[in-house]
Amino acid sequence: MTDALLHFEDFPVGEVVTYGSYKLTREAILAFAREYDPQPFHLDEEAAKDTLLSGLAASGWHACAILMRLNCDGFLSNSTSMGAPGIDEVKWLAPLRPDVTLSVRRTALEARTSKSRPELGFVKFLFELIADEKAVVATQVCSIMFGRRQAP
Amino acid sequence: MTDALLHFEDFPVGEVVTYGSYKLTREAILAFAREYDPQPFHLDEEAAKDTLLSGLAASGWHACAILMRLNCDGFLSNSTSMGAPGIDEVKWLAPLRPDVTLSVRRTALEARTSKSRPELGFVKFLFELIADEKAVVATQVCSIMFGRRQAP
Repeated sequence: MTDALLHFEDFPVGEVVTYGSYKLTREAILAFAREYDPQPFHLDEEAAKDTLLSGLAASGWHACAILMRLNCDGFLSNSTSMGAPGIDEVKWLAPLRPDVTLSVRRTALEARTSKSRPELGFVKFLFELIADEKAVVATQVCSIMFGRRQAP
Repeated sequence: MTDALLHFEDFPVGEVVTYGSYKLTREAILAFAREYDPQPFHLDEEAAKDTLLSGLAASGWHACAILMRLNCDGFLSNSTSMGAPGIDEVKWLAPLRPDVTLSVRRTALEARTSKSRPELGFVKFLFELIADEKAVVATQVCSIMFGRRQAP
């Protein structure tokens, strides 16, 4: 792993950064829903009107997938990331509508080195998925493994 | 909502059911990864060999999306589901490889009626995503809203 890549030490706890720009179209909402989440409120404007979402909205899993893409492009692809063992929490706070532009606000919550594998460390992040630079539509908390610059 | 649909009362706590059959191809793994999670271990067999996954494996978000599809086909599309406010937890336990067939084991963990909206109730489920009827590759815990048969 080259020094130019982001390592465990490059995510100080408390740091907040924003990045990304992902235009979400109605067609993309429908395509994802047809494949993975064919519930009426993700597929059909008319059917969605009478639901809790009050109109067509993207699958929550589509929101998660887009957040992943924004994180890859925003920092993971330029890092020593070894992935994550899971997700601590996802909240879908507001309907994700067609024709919004999505970005991410990332907060480093905690950092800890691995005892069993001292060459890596975990950083716990809060990711907020933001529509049109205004509304937080979803949040996610997860811990990502990174290589350490100074492994003991 | 018709009586034929599954309601809140139709998911007794402790019930365990299995369902679904989803054949995951290498092409589908690559297509999802290209769009949403372009990390080397989801895209390239050679690059994946030297990672913690020890070979090509699907994005964890692809696993979540397939689980959603299996749940729609398995029971949600035949229910009064109004979606979920979020996810309590996801664990990716084992690499999800090409050419496995996925199914779901669902356990009803808790059930509670809504105080603010007495016409609905929440059922908390554990979903286990199972490859080739053997290995649990991912688990998910979440609470889904359903209409009640006997609203006060």
